[in-house]
Amino acid sequence: MGSGAIKGYDFNRQFDAKEFFAAFSSTGLQATNLGKAIDLTKKMQKDGAKIFLGFTSNASTSGLRDIITYLVKNNLVHFLVTTTGGIEEDVIKTHGDFLHGSFEESGSYLRKNGVNRSGNIYVPNERYIWFEGFMKNLLLRLYKSGATIDSVDFVREMGRELEGKTRHKESFTYWAYKNNIPLLCVPLADGAIGDHLYFFKKNHPNFSIDLVREVELLYDIVLNAGKTGAIIIGGSVPKHHIMNALMLREGADYTVYINTGHEGEGSNAGANVEEAKSWGKAAHNDNNVKVWGEASIIFPILIAAGFKLK
Amino acid sequence: MGSGAIKGYDFNRQFDAKEFFAAFSSTGLQATNLGKAIDLTKKMQKDGAKIFLGFTSNASTSGLRDIITYLVKNNLVHFLVTTTGGIEEDVIKTHGDFLHGSFEESGSYLRKNGVNRSGNIYVPNERYIWFEGFMKNLLLRLYKSGATIDSVDFVREMGRELEGKTRHKESFTYWAYKNNIPLLCVPLADGAIGDHLYFFKKNHPNFSIDLVREVELLYDIVLNAGKTGAIIIGGSVPKHHIMNALMLREGADYTVYINTGHEGEGSNAGANVEEAKSWGKAAHNDNNVKVWGEASIIFPILIAAGFKLK
Amino acid sequence: MGSGAIKGYDFNRQFDAKEFFAAFSSTGLQATNLGKAIDLTKKMQKDGAKIFLGFTSNASTSGLRDIITYLVKNNLVHFLVTTTGGIEEDVIKTHGDFLHGSFEESGSYLRKNGVNRSGNIYVPNERYIWFEGFMKNLLLRLYKSGATIDSVDFVREMGRELEGKTRHKESFTYWAYKNNIPLLCVPLADGAIGDHLYFFKKNHPNFSIDLVREVELLYDIVLNAGKTGAIIIGGSVPKHHIMNALMLREGADYTVYINTGHEGEGSNAGANVEEAKSWGKAAHNDNNVKVWGEASIIFPILIAAGFKLK
Amino acid sequence: MGSGAIKGYDFNRQFDAKEFFAAFSSTGLQATNLGKAIDLTKKMQKDGAKIFLGFTSNASTSGLRDIITYLVKNNLVHFLVTTTGGIEEDVIKTHGDFLHGSFEESGSYLRKNGVNRSGNIYVPNERYIWFEGFMKNLLLRLYKSGATIDSVDFVREMGRELEGKTRHKESFTYWAYKNNIPLLCVPLADGAIGDHLYFFKKNHPNFSIDLVREVELLYDIVLNAGKTGAIIIGGSVPKHHIMNALMLREGADYTVYINTGHEGEGSNAGANVEEAKSWGKAAHNDNNVKVWGEASIIFPILIAAGFKLK
Repeated sequence: MGSGAIKGYDFNRQFDAKEFFAAFSSTGLQATNLGKAIDLTKKMQKDGAKIFLGFTSNASTSGLRDIITYLVKNNLVHFLVTTTGGIEEDVIKTHGDFLHGSFEESGSYLRKNGVNRSGNIYVPNERYIWFEGFMKNLLLRLYKSGATIDSVDFVREMGRELEGKTRHKESFTYWAYKNNIPLLCVPLADGAIGDHLYFFKKNHPNFSIDLVREVELLYDIVLNAGKTGAIIIGGSVPKHHIMNALMLREGADYTVYINTGHEGEGSNAGANVEEAKSWGKAAHNDNNVKVWGEASIIFPILIAAGFKLK
Repeated sequence: MGSGAIKGYDFNRQFDAKEFFAAFSSTGLQATNLGKAIDLTKKMQKDGAKIFLGFTSNASTSGLRDIITYLVKNNLVHFLVTTTGGIEEDVIKTHGDFLHGSFEESGSYLRKNGVNRSGNIYVPNERYIWFEGFMKNLLLRLYKSGATIDSVDFVREMGRELEGKTRHKESFTYWAYKNNIPLLCVPLADGAIGDHLYFFKKNHPNFSIDLVREVELLYDIVLNAGKTGAIIIGGSVPKHHIMNALMLREGADYTVYINTGHEGEGSNAGANVEEAKSWGKAAHNDNNVKVWGEASIIFPILIAAGFKLK
Repeated sequence: MGSGAIKGYDFNRQFDAKEFFAAFSSTGLQATNLGKAIDLTKKMQKDGAKIFLGFTSNASTSGLRDIITYLVKNNLVHFLVTTTGGIEEDVIKTHGDFLHGSFEESGSYLRKNGVNRSGNIYVPNERYIWFEGFMKNLLLRLYKSGATIDSVDFVREMGRELEGKTRHKESFTYWAYKNNIPLLCVPLADGAIGDHLYFFKKNHPNFSIDLVREVELLYDIVLNAGKTGAIIIGGSVPKHHIMNALMLREGADYTVYINTGHEGEGSNAGANVEEAKSWGKAAHNDNNVKVWGEASIIFPILIAAGFKLK
Repeated sequence: MGSGAIKGYDFNRQFDAKEFFAAFSSTGLQATNLGKAIDLTKKMQKDGAKIFLGFTSNASTSGLRDIITYLVKNNLVHFLVTTTGGIEEDVIKTHGDFLHGSFEESGSYLRKNGVNRSGNIYVPNERYIWFEGFMKNLLLRLYKSGATIDSVDFVREMGRELEGKTRHKESFTYWAYKNNIPLLCVPLADGAIGDHLYFFKKNHPNFSIDLVREVELLYDIVLNAGKTGAIIIGGSVPKHHIMNALMLREGADYTVYINTGHEGEGSNAGANVEEAKSWGKAAHNDNNVKVWGEASIIFPILIAAGFKLK
């Protein structure tokens, strides 16, 4: 019972990045889970699987946003689901950087100084003022076009709106539009986007956005894909939305979760791969793994070892 | 520096439930946070605050659903936000119970036996088959009515559809409809509801649901409320959606979070009250608390001590 | 598959504490685990099991200390294991209270003001100055007695030293001595106790304390007990030490863990009951449970429902 | 307010391990904390600080054991504190490997097959039978020598006992002995070592081990060191013991914590660096960091970037 020896990376030899990442597999505990995630990521690519990437907004707040842009720009992933913050922060960063701050700073002090905090990352209010202008232009353009709008189009139009703007090539929302990769924002009417929808509707009472087409798009792709892979950062809607859709084909062929959730609370966020199997979200074999850990460290390693150095 | 002695409940005396709950305040650590949450909950009621209750779907999966029904039925809370699973599981339970199971059971074994698992709670597939019929009837009725549908109406119609059905009085979706308490399902097009929207749209291509009115409703109420209180179970969209809306009035007057999230990952789910203050989501005073703990234990105590025995 | 309906407490009826606690069992998630812990605690007592109570020092820092004193004073538990902080904080509290503070206060600010922080609990330096005198007297008395000292005696002598002092009846260290209930401090040479051992040895180089007798005492009791029950708050040495000893009899008959640890890191602290069974620490049946949660809230409920209202 | 832009690693360029690790600093969230830990580790070495390495036993169970051996063999760390399992598993691995297993396997099934589980790592019982012989030989040799034994000598003699045995050069216990690097096992009388002390004492009632000298050794070194650095994996005694000793010199000059603990429970395990400052355990400046994460992934990166590629 048990297979293969537990063994850490051998630092006595000259450092080799590929060997270093490969050594996670034999280290045990979450390192072994990360090693498995790297292997599954390689298999997704080898099989030409359609890769669904889900992520919560903190990925966008942090530097993972630049790594996601790399993946979308190079067509390495094929369907994205994030939350409102995930989109709006990506767009805002084309205007101005987010800054390093402290987890411990007083909220009232920051508020007085016009700074919003997400963990140890600071977002000056000025960024959101710019975004207000961005959204006003977009909403007017869409409204005047007279077309019926749905949430899928809406996000794509956000990408188009960026074209030609400063630093737009750093945005995955832009590249998703450019490369015609579906990018769902679920829910759409939350966060600053929700605020601007509210104010716009006050002056344009008949303004509406359909939410049904987003499932149509997602499910059609899920049902028509060959092999499928899911890479999910965090919990919340992106995790549930992608995995729920994959139930229609008795589960993703390959599933990689990266999150800090705990299964003991019975939330979908913390649900592990065994729970996913019971619903038919993940395949009934061993091609599934949850890496229990914080994504700002785990995800760059996954991309380095699973995509770049594969 | 420091105020008042740390002291645990005195079990030498005859047990008194009110005193027992009151002793949490002086016990230190999360017990003190729970004590504060109880006090804030009482203040919300004393001030006649409009109480916004947010909860993730695991609250609905667990017995907390029955406690939420108690609150809605008795008009003790005034605005609800949950996720897709939060609504559909409440509705499904009017048809059949969810059952006790094991966190450790094999996912494949459960799948073969037609059982879906959420933590240690089992949901037989049969429940979802019933829900399919429920949704078909509802969708046809709404479609035939010819009315433009939005996500707010949609959830209210789910409540109306329950009327007269077996055990409908156990459902908070029903009571929200009956008592005219707004109940948002954000996002709507996820989970089993999303599945049924997908299949319905295949046969009714012009079927659509507007998502903008839900922010209109929420923000109008937020802006016109006197005092406001937020009680938020879990992370995900319900937490963000309510607190984001409350930014429009420089934060909730009283905020109670109950969740197991960790601020170290910079997610909104794990964000503490200091972070909320920086955004203007929570008031710039001491009327905010996060109880770090699992809600199936914490929430019943909050309701017992903060509502029932207040 | 699955047994019994998930159901929350019925608040529509008049509040009844016993029924309220009983309802945890049917609520699902960790509430169900807490319900099971309550049942196991009742069984321990019904069977006349020898109850081993382990707890980390934060239990002593918080108001749980007063609840532990209640248990020891009334002979409701029969063997205690804690860490250095667990003993010294209990002793110090006979001199002066610990105070309510804030999780967020600046460490440097507190240091300048002579306040040590444990979570949201403040311990003024003055408390430790008193403890220095207490330890000096004790060490001199023990040294002059000429007896060979072991760590078991040492803790018992700490209890004896308290006799007659202000508020000594609030101390479980005192009651363990008075009621002749074994109380192990593992390790002994840590924390402030370690500091005083260091300074004493500088002037008394031949001063030594044997550490072997503590396992002798523990294992003899474990091997000669009829039924055994383990109630373990937190991780660290108390959890490992008690459960490791119980391996000698193929595991505790009843095991209740209360902690926030995660099994994913492979630590003993986070190890669940299935892991304990593999080692023979917990019985190979269903009389074991881990309640995943913070003890300052969970433990008072366990004692209320499992001991006081049983 | 805020300093420097949040930016992820640029995968568009050719992969460079040094740049990749350096990019953690600008990524935000825990990646930034890891970047800071790497910087502090480099500073420790540049300053010639005495480096105190503490780790819980799961480090030894996993492949981190081989990395610790690398550090001790090459004199890169200067004082080690671990728990009983930390030592005995290192020693046992010279006899036989630990094996890869599953977090989900049934405890009873493993027990019947003679396999102990720590997370996803399996340790066959046979390993412990070998250790019984190892300990018997050691105890007899020490007892016959007639010398007064203390816990410091005891661990060093475990290292000496390995000399010449198969694979002894893979053991950090061996290299600590060989390189005369202090290695404390706190507590000593726990785990399998405690078992063997118990049985040995049954036949040799006057056998004893002094526990006071270990604080003497630790504190003397702490007080006489130039600069000091602490690298602490996990919580439990190693974290407390090292940091408590460093209070004698108003805190470590550089502190790096790697653990998954949460400050909300007020345990020492979860205590963050601000709490450490209040006690005078960590320096009152910014040379302290806690990386919230699981060590099997974090620690190899710290050693790669902070020691090997520095």
